[in-house]
Amino acid sequence: MNVQYVPVHCLGILDKVYMEMSKSELLMSVLPPDSFRFRYVAIIRVTYGIMLPIMMIIEMTRMKLDIVRKIGWFAVYTVFLQLALILMFMGFVRYDSLYDGYIWNSTRVYGHSTPDLNHFYPMFQDIHVMIIIGFGFLMTFLKRYGFSAVSLNLLLSSLTLQVAILVDGIARSRGGYIKLNILTLMEAEFACATVLISFGAVLGKVSATQLVLAVLLEVPAWVVNKYVGVEVLGVVDLGGSILVHVFGAYFGLAMSRALSRRVSPMDHDLEASTYYSDIFSMVGTTFLWVFWPSFNAVLGTERGAGRAVINTYLALAAAVVAAFVTSAWKNERNKWEMVHVQNATLAGGVAVGAVADLMLQPWGALILGFLAGLLSTLGYMDLQPLLANRLGLHDSCGVNNLHGMPGLLSGVVSIGMALLASETSYGKDLYTQYPMMAPMGNTSALQELLEEIPDASAGSARTSAQQALCQGLALLLSTLLAGVAGTVTGLLLTCGSTCESPRQDQLFADDPWWEVPDADAVMEGGSNGRDSGKLFSIQIPPRVEGGGRKIIYQSRSVSDSNPPRANSPSAAIMRASRGFPGLRSLNWHYVPSLTDANEGKSGEVSEDGKTRRLIC
Amino acid sequence: MNVQYVPVHCLGILDKVYMEMSKSELLMSVLPPDSFRFRYVAIIRVTYGIMLPIMMIIEMTRMKLDIVRKIGWFAVYTVFLQLALILMFMGFVRYDSLYDGYIWNSTRVYGHSTPDLNHFYPMFQDIHVMIIIGFGFLMTFLKRYGFSAVSLNLLLSSLTLQVAILVDGIARSRGGYIKLNILTLMEAEFACATVLISFGAVLGKVSATQLVLAVLLEVPAWVVNKYVGVEVLGVVDLGGSILVHVFGAYFGLAMSRALSRRVSPMDHDLEASTYYSDIFSMVGTTFLWVFWPSFNAVLGTERGAGRAVINTYLALAAAVVAAFVTSAWKNERNKWEMVHVQNATLAGGVAVGAVADLMLQPWGALILGFLAGLLSTLGYMDLQPLLANRLGLHDSCGVNNLHGMPGLLSGVVSIGMALLASETSYGKDLYTQYPMMAPMGNTSALQELLEEIPDASAGSARTSAQQALCQGLALLLSTLLAGVAGTVTGLLLTCGSTCESPRQDQLFADDPWWEVPDADAVMEGGSNGRDSGKLFSIQIPPRVEGGGRKIIYQSRSVSDSNPPRANSPSAAIMRASRGFPGLRSLNWHYVPSLTDANEGKSGEVSEDGKTRRLIC
Amino acid sequence: MNVQYVPVHCLGILDKVYMEMSKSELLMSVLPPDSFRFRYVAIIRVTYGIMLPIMMIIEMTRMKLDIVRKIGWFAVYTVFLQLALILMFMGFVRYDSLYDGYIWNSTRVYGHSTPDLNHFYPMFQDIHVMIIIGFGFLMTFLKRYGFSAVSLNLLLSSLTLQVAILVDGIARSRGGYIKLNILTLMEAEFACATVLISFGAVLGKVSATQLVLAVLLEVPAWVVNKYVGVEVLGVVDLGGSILVHVFGAYFGLAMSRALSRRVSPMDHDLEASTYYSDIFSMVGTTFLWVFWPSFNAVLGTERGAGRAVINTYLALAAAVVAAFVTSAWKNERNKWEMVHVQNATLAGGVAVGAVADLMLQPWGALILGFLAGLLSTLGYMDLQPLLANRLGLHDSCGVNNLHGMPGLLSGVVSIGMALLASETSYGKDLYTQYPMMAPMGNTSALQELLEEIPDASAGSARTSAQQALCQGLALLLSTLLAGVAGTVTGLLLTCGSTCESPRQDQLFADDPWWEVPDADAVMEGGSNGRDSGKLFSIQIPPRVEGGGRKIIYQSRSVSDSNPPRANSPSAAIMRASRGFPGLRSLNWHYVPSLTDANEGKSGEVSEDGKTRRLIC
Repeated sequence: MNVQYVPVHCLGILDKVYMEMSKSELLMSVLPPDSFRFRYVAIIRVTYGIMLPIMMIIEMTRMKLDIVRKIGWFAVYTVFLQLALILMFMGFVRYDSLYDGYIWNSTRVYGHSTPDLNHFYPMFQDIHVMIIIGFGFLMTFLKRYGFSAVSLNLLLSSLTLQVAILVDGIARSRGGYIKLNILTLMEAEFACATVLISFGAVLGKVSATQLVLAVLLEVPAWVVNKYVGVEVLGVVDLGGSILVHVFGAYFGLAMSRALSRRVSPMDHDLEASTYYSDIFSMVGTTFLWVFWPSFNAVLGTERGAGRAVINTYLALAAAVVAAFVTSAWKNERNKWEMVHVQNATLAGGVAVGAVADLMLQPWGALILGFLAGLLSTLGYMDLQPLLANRLGLHDSCGVNNLHGMPGLLSGVVSIGMALLASETSYGKDLYTQYPMMAPMGNTSALQELLEEIPDASAGSARTSAQQALCQGLALLLSTLLAGVAGTVTGLLLTCGSTCESPRQDQLFADDPWWEVPDADAVMEGGSNGRDSGKLFSIQIPPRVEGGGRKIIYQSRSVSDSNPPRANSPSAAIMRASRGFPGLRSLNWHYVPSLTDANEGKSGEVSEDGKTRRLIC
Repeated sequence: MNVQYVPVHCLGILDKVYMEMSKSELLMSVLPPDSFRFRYVAIIRVTYGIMLPIMMIIEMTRMKLDIVRKIGWFAVYTVFLQLALILMFMGFVRYDSLYDGYIWNSTRVYGHSTPDLNHFYPMFQDIHVMIIIGFGFLMTFLKRYGFSAVSLNLLLSSLTLQVAILVDGIARSRGGYIKLNILTLMEAEFACATVLISFGAVLGKVSATQLVLAVLLEVPAWVVNKYVGVEVLGVVDLGGSILVHVFGAYFGLAMSRALSRRVSPMDHDLEASTYYSDIFSMVGTTFLWVFWPSFNAVLGTERGAGRAVINTYLALAAAVVAAFVTSAWKNERNKWEMVHVQNATLAGGVAVGAVADLMLQPWGALILGFLAGLLSTLGYMDLQPLLANRLGLHDSCGVNNLHGMPGLLSGVVSIGMALLASETSYGKDLYTQYPMMAPMGNTSALQELLEEIPDASAGSARTSAQQALCQGLALLLSTLLAGVAGTVTGLLLTCGSTCESPRQDQLFADDPWWEVPDADAVMEGGSNGRDSGKLFSIQIPPRVEGGGRKIIYQSRSVSDSNPPRANSPSAAIMRASRGFPGLRSLNWHYVPSLTDANEGKSGEVSEDGKTRRLIC
Repeated sequence: MNVQYVPVHCLGILDKVYMEMSKSELLMSVLPPDSFRFRYVAIIRVTYGIMLPIMMIIEMTRMKLDIVRKIGWFAVYTVFLQLALILMFMGFVRYDSLYDGYIWNSTRVYGHSTPDLNHFYPMFQDIHVMIIIGFGFLMTFLKRYGFSAVSLNLLLSSLTLQVAILVDGIARSRGGYIKLNILTLMEAEFACATVLISFGAVLGKVSATQLVLAVLLEVPAWVVNKYVGVEVLGVVDLGGSILVHVFGAYFGLAMSRALSRRVSPMDHDLEASTYYSDIFSMVGTTFLWVFWPSFNAVLGTERGAGRAVINTYLALAAAVVAAFVTSAWKNERNKWEMVHVQNATLAGGVAVGAVADLMLQPWGALILGFLAGLLSTLGYMDLQPLLANRLGLHDSCGVNNLHGMPGLLSGVVSIGMALLASETSYGKDLYTQYPMMAPMGNTSALQELLEEIPDASAGSARTSAQQALCQGLALLLSTLLAGVAGTVTGLLLTCGSTCESPRQDQLFADDPWWEVPDADAVMEGGSNGRDSGKLFSIQIPPRVEGGGRKIIYQSRSVSDSNPPRANSPSAAIMRASRGFPGLRSLNWHYVPSLTDANEGKSGEVSEDGKTRRLIC
C-alpha cells in the first residue's frame, strides 16, 4: 500500500458517494444541496491543502536527507504543518465583524452580530481549563509518562485548535472569510476534546510524529461527522456525547487496534502508576468534574443552560457514588482502585451530555449518572481486560469506559427523550430545544410561535418519532465513521517510513523522548531489585573483603543507541566499566559484584593500594 | 445503648422542646409559628426518611448475611442511601420555574423569578473549585492518606450536596416542590463546606462508612442551625463564618473527641507529611486563597459584594504575612513550617466572613486578617498540642485553628460591627445589610425607604443593640449545637456494629482501603532503617559468600488478613518465607543481615543450608 | 557606603532631576505640571514613609538586640512593614464611592462611577489564579526549593498588592483618598506579576528578608515607569509586555547581577529538577497558558478585548508548536526538555502583549507567537549559558527568555503596529485604541468622533509616527529604568548587615528556611553515590562478618550550625559518630561503618581493623 495515495483514494471514494447521493431525490430533498456541495468541496480542498505537504514530506524520506535526519522528523513535520497553517490563516481567517475595524467600518449597517464575549467567556475558560489541565493531568497517571502526557496534551491542543478553526470554519462557511469570535474558539475546544479522548486510547503507544499526523486525519473526519449530525440529521446533542465523546472514543480505539500491528502494549512493565502519579491524575479529574457543567451548558439557550447545569451537576454526583460503590463491591477485598475514582466519577457528565438541556428532571439525571458510573466502573474491571485479551484491543486510559459506553448510553437515552418530547413538558420551548420540530418557514404556526418565543426559528415540522430516528442515526453514524476513520488513521500511521511506532522498550516511557532528570531514577525501582523491564539498577555492592564501597545507581535505557548525558553518573559508570564486555550490551540491570580478579582493568580505581571498583 | 433507637429518642426530645417552646408567648411572638411548624415537621420527616433505611441496615447486621459481607458494608450502605435519595428527588425535587417547561408553561403569568444563571455562575464555579479542589488537595498533606483525602472529599461532596438539596429545600419550602436553581446549588456547596471542615477534624481516623453516616447526621443539624440563625435570629453572616466555619469546626472536633473512645491517633507514625505531599497540599491552599473572595461575596448585594471582595482580598493578604511572621518568630531556629502556610494563610478569609460586606474599611480588613493569621498560627504551635495532650482532643487538619477560632473571632467582630451600624456609615444601605433593622411593614418609614432603595424589604425595626445580641446568640447557638450534634454523631459512629472505627494500624493510611501501587513503597521509608511504625522494609542483603541476592522491598500491613497482590514482590517474599511460622504474623520491619548462625529461630529464613535471621 | 542614606541620596538626585526638568519648557509643555508635581511629591513621601522604618531597623542592627536576634530579622522586618501598611491604609485608603455608604451617601449626586464588579470579576479571578497558582507552581521546578517557590510567591504577592495599592494609588490620586474597586485590585495584580517575574530571576539565591526589601524598592520604581509610560508617553501596551514583562525581567536580571557580588550560583548541585518537581511546574505552566488571554484582554475596550482574546489564544498555540519544534531540533538526540515546555510555550502570550488588542489579524498572532516560542527556546539553549559564563549573569527561571526577549519583541512589533495604524484598518476605533491620536479637546473633529463613538475622549492629535516614537521611548525607558533600579536594589540588598545573602550551601534549598519532613530525604540522592554537593548519604553498610547494622540516611546541611532535629536518624548518627572529630566538620556523605575500634582519623572509620574512607 503506497501511503501517499491513500487520502486521494479515500477522497475519491467520498466523491463517488456524493455523486451517488446527489442522484437520490430522497436524500436531496433532505439536504440543502448547494451549500452542502460548496462545503463538501471546501472540505476536500482544505484536506488536500493539509495533506499534500505531508505527502511531500513522506516522499522526502526516500531522499534520506542528512539535514532532515539531524533535525528529526518530528520537528520537520511539525514546523511544516505550522507554516502551512499560518499560510492558510492568511488566506482564510479574519476577526469577526465587530472586532475587525475594516469590516466593521464597511458593514456596520447590516452587520452580522458578533457573539458577546462577556456572556460566553467564563464558561469558555472553564472548558479551556478542562482541555488543558483536566485532560492533561488526568493522563499523568502512568508512572513514567507524566512529561509526555501533560506536554503532548498541550501540543496536540495547540495544533488541533488551529486545524479545527480552519476545517470547521470552511465547513460552516457560506463563502467569505472564516470569522473568529468566542464561539469559533469554543468549537475549536470541542475539537480538542475529541482529539484528546482519542489520544487517551493510544497514550504511551505512539510517537509525537504519529500524533501530529493523527490530528490532521481526525479533525476533518470529526467535522464531517458533526456536519452530517448537526446540519443534516439535526441531532440534539448539547454536551457532545454523540459527536465528541462517542466519536473520539471509537476513533481512538480503532486507531489503537490498527496500531497493534506494530506495537504490543499488553502487560507492559511501565503501564502502572505510582502513588504520586495517581494523585497528579486527580488534579485532572477534579477540574474535569468541577467544570463539566460548563461543557454541557455553554451552547444552551437561557432555559436550556439552566437545566444543563443542574442535570450535569447531579449526574456527576451520582456517578461518584456509583463508582465508589462498584469499585468496593467488585474488589475481592472491598478496596477501591484509584483508576475508578479518576475516571468513572466523570462518566455521569458524559452520560448526561446528549440530553443535558432536556426535561430529564433532577431524579432522571441522578439515575442516569448512577448508571453511567456503574457501567464505567464495570467496564474498567471486567470489559477492558476482556477486550485486551480476546480482541487485542488495548485502551491505555480506558476511554471506552469513560467516553465510549457512557456516550452510547447518552445517545440511547436521547432517543427516548426525543420520543417523549412534547409541548406538555417543554411548553413552546420545545421548538428551541428541538429546532427541527418547529413549524416550517412561512407558516402561520411559525408566526404564532415567534410571537411567543422570538428566538425560535423555522424548522422542518418533524414529529418526535422522526427526531428519535435522527438521534439514532447520528449515534450510529458517529460510531461507524469513528471506527472507519480511526482504523484508516491507525493503518496510515503504521505504514509510513518516517513516523515509526515506538519500539517495545519505548512504550509508556518518557525518556526516549525527553531529557529526564537523572536524580529521579532513585525514586523508582529504587533498590528493590526489579530485574525485568526497562527499569534497572546498577549496583555495585560493598566489597566484602578488603574493603569496598557501595554504589547504587539507577537509570533507564542506557545503551549504545541511547548513551547517557555527558558527565552524568550513568556516563561515568559506562566509562568506568569499559572492559567489562557484557556490560554495555546488556540492558544493565544489576551488576552484582565486581569483586573478583579484574584488577588493573579500566573501570577500576585503586585506593589505598587496594583495587576498588567504579568511582562515579 | 441500642443504636437504632437513638435518632428516635433525639427526635422525641426535639418534639418535646418544640411543644414547650410553643407554650411560650415570648418565643412565639418572635417565631412565625405556622411556617416554622411546617418546616420543623418536614425536617423530622425527612430525617426519618433518611434514618429509617439506615436503621434497617444496622438491624441487618445481626443477620450476618453472607452476601452483605461479600459486598462490604460501605457499598451496601451507600448504594442504599443513593437509591433513597433518588426516590426522594422523584417525590420532592424539580427544576425551578423558568427551567421547567411544564411549570413555566402554567405559571408564567405570576411566575416566581428564577435567579439569573449568568450572574451567579462565575462565582459559583469559583466556590465549586474551592470545595472539590481546594478542600480536596488541602487534605493531601498526610504522607500515606492522599488517595483517601482527595477521593473521599469528592465522595462526601457528592453525597452532601444531594442530602443538602433535600433537607435544606424542605426547611425552606412553603409547600410545593423543592425548586432547583443556581442558588439552590450554591446552598448545597455551603453544606459541603461545612461537612468537609468537619471531615478535616477526623481525617484519617474514620472509615468511609462512618463518614457517610456522619453526613446524614450533620446536614440536618446544619440546616436547623442555619434556619434558626438566619430566619429566627436574623443573623448577618454573609461569608458563613458563624454558620459554616464555626459549626463545621466544632461539629468535627466534638465528633473527633467522641470517636477517641475507639481510636488512639496520638503520635501516630503516619501522621506526617512528605516533601511532595506538602506541595500537593499547596494546590488546595492556593485555590482556596484565590477564590475565597467569591465565597464571601457571592450572596451579597451589589454594593455589599464589592466590599466583600475587597475585604476578603485584603484580609487574606494580611493573614499570609501574619502566618509567615508568627511561624518564623516562634520557631526556635526561625524556620517556617508548611502546615502554617497551608492553613493559617487562609484564616483571614474565615475571620472576615461574618463581616465581609460591612463597612469594615480596608484597614479594618487588614487588621482582622492579621489577627486571624496570628491566632491561627499560634493555634497550630501552642494550642493544638495542648488540646491533644490535656483533653485528648485530636484535630487532624487543625480545623480549630483554621476554621474554629478565626470563626469565633469573626462572630465577635460581627457583634461589634452590629453595635456600630448606623445610617451615618451605611446610608440607607443599612437596611439591606441588616434587613431586620429595616422598618416594619406597612409603615411610612418603609415607604420612604423603598422609594430610595427599591430592593429593600420590610424588617423588624431592630436597633443595633438588638442586632448585636442576635449575632451573639447565633454564635453561641452555632457553637453549642455543633458541639452537641457532633458528640452525638461521634457516639453513634462508635456504637454500631457495622461501621467500625479503623484499627490502630489502619489510621492515616490509604492501603487498608485502596489498592496502592506496589512500586511506591520504595519512595518512603526506603532503606532508612526505620524500625518502628507501620512502615517497614524487608531487606535481604546480598549473599556475601557464594553469591547472594539482594532484595529490598517495603510495604505495609502485609499480613494474613491483608495478603499482598499476586505476583508482587511482597507475594514473592512471602512465598519464599513459607515455613517460617512466625514471619507472616509479624509486622515485618527490617532484615539487617542474613549471615549469621541463628538457626531455627522463628522469623528466620534458611537458604543454601544457612539460616538467615529476620528481625521483626 | 552607608546603607541607610542611599535612598535619601537617590531621592535627592530625583529631586534635582525634577528641578532641572521644570526649567525646560519643552518638557513642561508635554507634562501636565501640577498634577505631575503633586504625584511626584506624593511618591517621594510614601517612599520615605516606607523607607524610614526600614532604615530604622537597619540602624537597630548595631544594637544587637537579643530579642531581635531571637525573633529573627525576617519577622521583625515584615511585621514592622505590615504595621506600617495598616497605618497608611488607615490614612489613605477607602472603598470606592459606590461601596462606601458614607461617601455614597454624600456624593451620590455627582458621584464618580465605580467600575462594575460583575463585568471584571471573572477575568480578575483568572489573573489572580495566574499570579498565585501560575507563577507559584511554575517556580516549583527546582528539586529542593518547592516549599519556598510556592510559599514565597504567596508572601510576596500579599505584600506587593498592599504596597502597590498604596504607591500606585497615590501616583494616580488627584487628592483625596485612594479608592478601592475591582480595577484597583487589578492594578495590584499587575504589580504582583512584575515583582514575581523579577523573583524568578533570583529564585533560590536570596533570603526572604531580601525579597521583602526588594518589593519595597521595586514597586515604586515600577509605578514611576508606568506613570511615565502611560500618562506621559501615552504608550499602548494592553497586556503589559513593556511595562510589566520587560520591566520585571530586567529589574530581576540587574538585581541578580548585582547580587552575584555575594552569591555564586553557577553549577550548583541543587539547581536541577526531579521528575515530580517538573510535573508540579506544569501545574503553573498550564494555568498561565489557559488564563493568559484574560491577562491581555481584561483592560481592553469591548472590541479590543475580543481581538486580545483571539490574538493571545493563537499566539500561545503557535508558541507551543515552536517550543516543541525548537527543543527537539536543537537537542543532539532530538529529545525535548521540560524547561522549554514549561516556559517557552508561554512566550507567545508575552510577545503578543503590547499589541494584543490591535489589528494584528489571526495570522499575525500566529507568526508572532511562533517567533516568540522560537526565540525563547533558543534563549534557554544558547543564550542563557552564554550569559552565565561570559557575563556572570545567572537567571534562575530564565526570565530573560520567557519575559525579557519576548517582551522586547512585543515592544518592537508595537512600534511597527503604531506606524501602520490608520482609520482604514481600525475605523474610528483607532481613537479608542490609540487615545493620544484622537483629536484635541474642543475641536470639531472631536465632536464628530464623539457622535460616532461616545466612549472616545480628547487626545493630542498625534500622528502614527509620533505614536511609534513614544512606543519606542517607553520600551527604552522601561529597559533602562529596570536595569538601573534593579542594580540599585541588588547593591542595597548586599550591603546591609541584617539581610545577608544566603551562604553557598543554602542556595536553592528549602531546608535552611523550612522544617522539611525527615522522611523525604530518602526520595532524592538516594543511594546513588552522588559524591559532590549538598546532597549526601550517610550509609552504614551491613557489617559483613560478625553482624552489622545497615543504615542508609540522606539529608542535607547537617552541621554544627544546623543540627538535626532531636530523635531524627541524623541526630542518632551524629550522636553515634562522636569521637570522629573530622566527621562533623565535613559535609557528611558516607559513613561506611561505625561499629568498631575507631582509629581516630579525621573522616575515617575503622572497621574490623580495616580503614574505610569517608568519600565526600
